[in-house]
Amino acid sequence: MPHRPALTPLVESLPATVPFVGPEAQERSRGRPFRARIGANENGFGPSPRVAAAIAEAAPESWKYCDPENHDLRAALAAQLGVGMENIVVDGGIDILLGVTVRQYVEPGAAVVTSLGAYPTFNYHVAGFGGRLVTVPYDGGDRESLDGLVDAVKREGAPLVYLSNPDNPMGTWWEADDVVRFIDALPETTMLVLDEAYGETAPASALPPLDVTRPNVLRMRTFSKAYALAGLRCGYAIGERETIRAFEKVRNHFGMSRLAQVAALAALHDQAHLADIVTRVAACRDRIAGIAAENGLVALPSATNFVAIDCGGDGDFALKAMEALVADGIFVRKPMAPGLDRCIRVSVGPEAEIALFAEALPPALAAARGG
Amino acid sequence: MPHRPALTPLVESLPATVPFVGPEAQERSRGRPFRARIGANENGFGPSPRVAAAIAEAAPESWKYCDPENHDLRAALAAQLGVGMENIVVDGGIDILLGVTVRQYVEPGAAVVTSLGAYPTFNYHVAGFGGRLVTVPYDGGDRESLDGLVDAVKREGAPLVYLSNPDNPMGTWWEADDVVRFIDALPETTMLVLDEAYGETAPASALPPLDVTRPNVLRMRTFSKAYALAGLRCGYAIGERETIRAFEKVRNHFGMSRLAQVAALAALHDQAHLADIVTRVAACRDRIAGIAAENGLVALPSATNFVAIDCGGDGDFALKAMEALVADGIFVRKPMAPGLDRCIRVSVGPEAEIALFAEALPPALAAARGG
Repeated sequence: MPHRPALTPLVESLPATVPFVGPEAQERSRGRPFRARIGANENGFGPSPRVAAAIAEAAPESWKYCDPENHDLRAALAAQLGVGMENIVVDGGIDILLGVTVRQYVEPGAAVVTSLGAYPTFNYHVAGFGGRLVTVPYDGGDRESLDGLVDAVKREGAPLVYLSNPDNPMGTWWEADDVVRFIDALPETTMLVLDEAYGETAPASALPPLDVTRPNVLRMRTFSKAYALAGLRCGYAIGERETIRAFEKVRNHFGMSRLAQVAALAALHDQAHLADIVTRVAACRDRIAGIAAENGLVALPSATNFVAIDCGGDGDFALKAMEALVADGIFVRKPMAPGLDRCIRVSVGPEAEIALFAEALPPALAAARGG
Repeated sequence: MPHRPALTPLVESLPATVPFVGPEAQERSRGRPFRARIGANENGFGPSPRVAAAIAEAAPESWKYCDPENHDLRAALAAQLGVGMENIVVDGGIDILLGVTVRQYVEPGAAVVTSLGAYPTFNYHVAGFGGRLVTVPYDGGDRESLDGLVDAVKREGAPLVYLSNPDNPMGTWWEADDVVRFIDALPETTMLVLDEAYGETAPASALPPLDVTRPNVLRMRTFSKAYALAGLRCGYAIGERETIRAFEKVRNHFGMSRLAQVAALAALHDQAHLADIVTRVAACRDRIAGIAAENGLVALPSATNFVAIDCGGDGDFALKAMEALVADGIFVRKPMAPGLDRCIRVSVGPEAEIALFAEALPPALAAARGG
């Protein structure tokens, strides 16, 4: 005889897990703070001072709920993107939008296609709604395999497929023409989540033109990366109007932070800061690649705010190098999937932190070699 | 032959709806702002100045993701409440916690019990996960019926039941002894969501002692009401450790706003401001009741930050009075369920706004009588 409420069989079957352990948890376990926080693809260059000022100004108004329609932000985004407000849904980050999308299109047992080693939080949501994850290895260990994804979608009759472009965790990208061919090759009944979280730091040639006539493509973007507002939680999806309207059926209408709405709008209005950030991100990618080269390692080309460094050995070697860096107070992460796991992943940040990484890398590699 | 991805049958069956239309949407449709914003049970007295200062100070750090474990806030709450950190889960408001709870315990078709006219967002989540809502009329039109809820739970074999105490939308409450008897009468296999969003403004005698040994009770609280941080999105649930741990299976770990974490912690540390707010809320409830009496109407006793005023007629009459107020720039709402719908609901707020309400009520009642 049970003496407690029963979780649904699906939820009961899930592990109590977290897609990523946060740096704060690592710091608590280490007993001291990291010296450099360049592991979570955050943007240590920080948000526009005008954004911080807008937040400070709006803080006393935090007693008000958000506008559940996100009207002003959607209007500004629509004007910037040249689409209609009805083509945009705003929510508290791409993570939430991914969860809602899975919930909308995936029945328990249905196949969902992604790349082996791609964004874990997407996989978390697929498991959470009972989807059956089908993974496709990266192409040559570096880029998501567009052909492989299409083949898997068709073979499995998948209602949903995920592609990040530029890619996380490798930083690589496909050109827009390739992405358009990929979209054209997908069945019209398969929804594509095209995660463009790193779109602003990518070459313009990597982003296909927006086409809001296609019901089966959701382009997802965020204020977490180039706009440096990861902690505020604001992302959006762009799509065909009926596809976007379906989010109204299940989204948490009053879930947005009012300060996130205010901050995102202010960020959007400071395109000079964004341009400056993009320049600094590109320079920092080069700096990180240079550090890799100084150590005889190869940095993968990156269109994101991080760089994957091929440590020149196997996954075990790269893991040891990462662990040595972390032990030395440098917070970095690494991909874990076979083929990708030869790399560590270093986020851009202020030069002071990158210099600490440059200093810590040679002994970390030595430790990995000797260990 | 379909030419677009199919929503799951459940999601397809849902309306594209919103539990509440926000005041901003009403203002856009009116073409001018409200003169008084006293309709959404917000707390117009506002957050502590120390909270606003903490937000302003932390704003430039918004490039960092939140601590997904909500460690510091949970530690502070645990210390305040005399429970363990493992007895607390924090998320972006009670709305999210309600959704996650429904998802955890409700299979499609399962009965979920609530009161007819109680919190619409809970009902929205029940529908969203395919639950079958079973409603119990309020007791005498004023209080949720504890006996009626227990009877319905047993009759329907419901895995989940919802009770708000103090109640929204009526503002009434049960004493702790009654609530404990209600809990004792529930099957151990039925999860109770005890929504205590208005707990801080209630008499202490309305809140049962915390008992984190019971696996089937989730006490939900928020920083939206007494702490006046509705726009920041921070709520928490208190429960038995395994019940709390199950949230890790499905919650959005990086979904919290970092500023919400900072603000909630600062709010918790300013108990003097909370005490001041509670005093002002109580005085404003009396003021609103006095305005009702001046107009020959009866205000229901309230333990919340709002007052339900019985307009002395039927639902149609109260609706007309509310519409006249709204047309006059006074944002208020009203319950719509039979029995409750004789009332309008007025939130507390600064005297300037309450005075506008006092001025607008007599002509609104006259319009309702003449209309």
